[in-house]
Amino acid sequence: MKTIHTIKVLLALAIAGINAVNAQDSLPSWNDTAPKKAIIAFVEKVTKEGSADFVLPAERIATFDNDGTLWAEQPMYFQLFFALHQVKILAPQHPEWKDKEPFASLLKGDVKAALAGGEKAILEIVMATHAGMTTEEFEKSVKDWIATAKHPTTGRPLTEMVYQPMLELLTYLRANGFKTFIVSGGGIEFMRPWTEKVYGIPPEQIVGSSGKTKFEMRDGKPVLVKLPAIDFIDDKEGKPAGINSYIGRRPIAAFGNSDGDLQMLQWTAAGSGQRFCLYVHHTDAEREYAYDRESNIGQLDKGLDEAKAKGWTVVSMKEDWKRIFTYER
Amino acid sequence: MKTIHTIKVLLALAIAGINAVNAQDSLPSWNDTAPKKAIIAFVEKVTKEGSADFVLPAERIATFDNDGTLWAEQPMYFQLFFALHQVKILAPQHPEWKDKEPFASLLKGDVKAALAGGEKAILEIVMATHAGMTTEEFEKSVKDWIATAKHPTTGRPLTEMVYQPMLELLTYLRANGFKTFIVSGGGIEFMRPWTEKVYGIPPEQIVGSSGKTKFEMRDGKPVLVKLPAIDFIDDKEGKPAGINSYIGRRPIAAFGNSDGDLQMLQWTAAGSGQRFCLYVHHTDAEREYAYDRESNIGQLDKGLDEAKAKGWTVVSMKEDWKRIFTYER
Repeated sequence: MKTIHTIKVLLALAIAGINAVNAQDSLPSWNDTAPKKAIIAFVEKVTKEGSADFVLPAERIATFDNDGTLWAEQPMYFQLFFALHQVKILAPQHPEWKDKEPFASLLKGDVKAALAGGEKAILEIVMATHAGMTTEEFEKSVKDWIATAKHPTTGRPLTEMVYQPMLELLTYLRANGFKTFIVSGGGIEFMRPWTEKVYGIPPEQIVGSSGKTKFEMRDGKPVLVKLPAIDFIDDKEGKPAGINSYIGRRPIAAFGNSDGDLQMLQWTAAGSGQRFCLYVHHTDAEREYAYDRESNIGQLDKGLDEAKAKGWTVVSMKEDWKRIFTYER
Repeated sequence: MKTIHTIKVLLALAIAGINAVNAQDSLPSWNDTAPKKAIIAFVEKVTKEGSADFVLPAERIATFDNDGTLWAEQPMYFQLFFALHQVKILAPQHPEWKDKEPFASLLKGDVKAALAGGEKAILEIVMATHAGMTTEEFEKSVKDWIATAKHPTTGRPLTEMVYQPMLELLTYLRANGFKTFIVSGGGIEFMRPWTEKVYGIPPEQIVGSSGKTKFEMRDGKPVLVKLPAIDFIDDKEGKPAGINSYIGRRPIAAFGNSDGDLQMLQWTAAGSGQRFCLYVHHTDAEREYAYDRESNIGQLDKGLDEAKAKGWTVVSMKEDWKRIFTYER
């Protein structure tokens, strides 16, 4: 077994060498502005063996928000498109929805009225439409839906409304021994069926909001039934708690785009040694969307101030990204 | 980057080849009885590319109970030794414990009376002694304790009260592309500080029982404070729920030793394709302990019947293991 270990070590060193050479080419969709330089400088510091800043590969944990950080979140969270789809499919089994908000408005096609209840209404819709079935049935419903779901404005598959520069960043970090995680306010079981294919992040590296489940035997076969009860909300103060619960290590790098990510970035920054915190700032009304302090979705207000005060990296999509979505050629 | 990928693939194939040759020598502490043969047959089936039983490496999830499966659990769960240690340290801050069971008995040194309340009393002790501090402080207290904690009968460090054949099994599975997880009724934050060193299993691959935490700022620094409230009990029906929540994939192999693991084994067995379920049966009163259907700790009753009915592998420690603890030479 020693031989295998030696080969592994040699290969790891070889890969590290190749990566170092390729570093500048690993982020081709990033302009050569400050954010790209800051990312590369950080990665080179923590991967340089023998230096005071060196971090063992096992501790190279990087956490990414999903909505608005890895894929778009306008005109509304994509998980809501799924929920609306599910409301229509499930409505015949829920006659009470006709008189109950936010479902009543949704079924009338008035999405705006339904979402007037804010984050709480959203979670209610999500939990109600994500429950009452087994985890396997739910997984199938997500897979079926995402295979054809299109964005209302661009007409592109939602899985192509993904930011190309962030995909490159994920790959670059992994090539440098980082383990990449998603830590999202979105539903954990909503993300897991497709994140491996789209981002290269496996189910066990997804942290998200969740509903309770119940183990039971159906015809002698064990199933987990999804209950209409919230178990955990992975947003704001929930993000460090989710990281502690699911990962059990403090990240050394964290990436977000909203005030919902602020506590995750604070938690990451508060560790010892080199730390990297980055906000994606939606500044490109032409190629994507422009929103921050006043937005209902993905509000970035306190976070923007804190980023400035703490010297965190802020990416201006307009200035710092050559290409935005994966479908652009 | 293509070159790197090619090298990786070639190396993976080379390692796979070496492992196949070494398979028989990877489990030297196992007798050449049925369990060892069943393990090797299973691993060879699911790793044979092109065969109908082949399982992609990403889906080779193996889950292990901890207490009584990877390390001993007699004369009581080792986490309780830690809790007793903590009760003594924390008692001055909790004058009310003097009149409150199970703490009162503990402080008088009457462990038996304290534990008369069963699993519920145990969890109460654990939660009370594991709360009221930050996650970092708690981690340090576990590390400090386990560095010197000894077993009351053998006098050995608790980290050597680990089953050598199971360590070999973990290594053998990982060498064959499996990702190994612990899914234990024990505290997730109690295990994480030492499982990587002892079992080679990193914090993010530990699932266990947990308490709630609260994010707060202390002197401008974010901390997570451990609350005296149970968040999740990872036992019995909780194990499949924990697997679903933390791992998000169904294991293809599961290893336990008690009725507390039964639902995890059922959940594992109920997937499609090749599945492997194993019970460690404590049958060796001389070298370890002998207990099953009547035991208060690690009761194995229903599980033993179901293993027989379903043809699961049952390891008799006495018959199937050459060596038990890692400290035996």
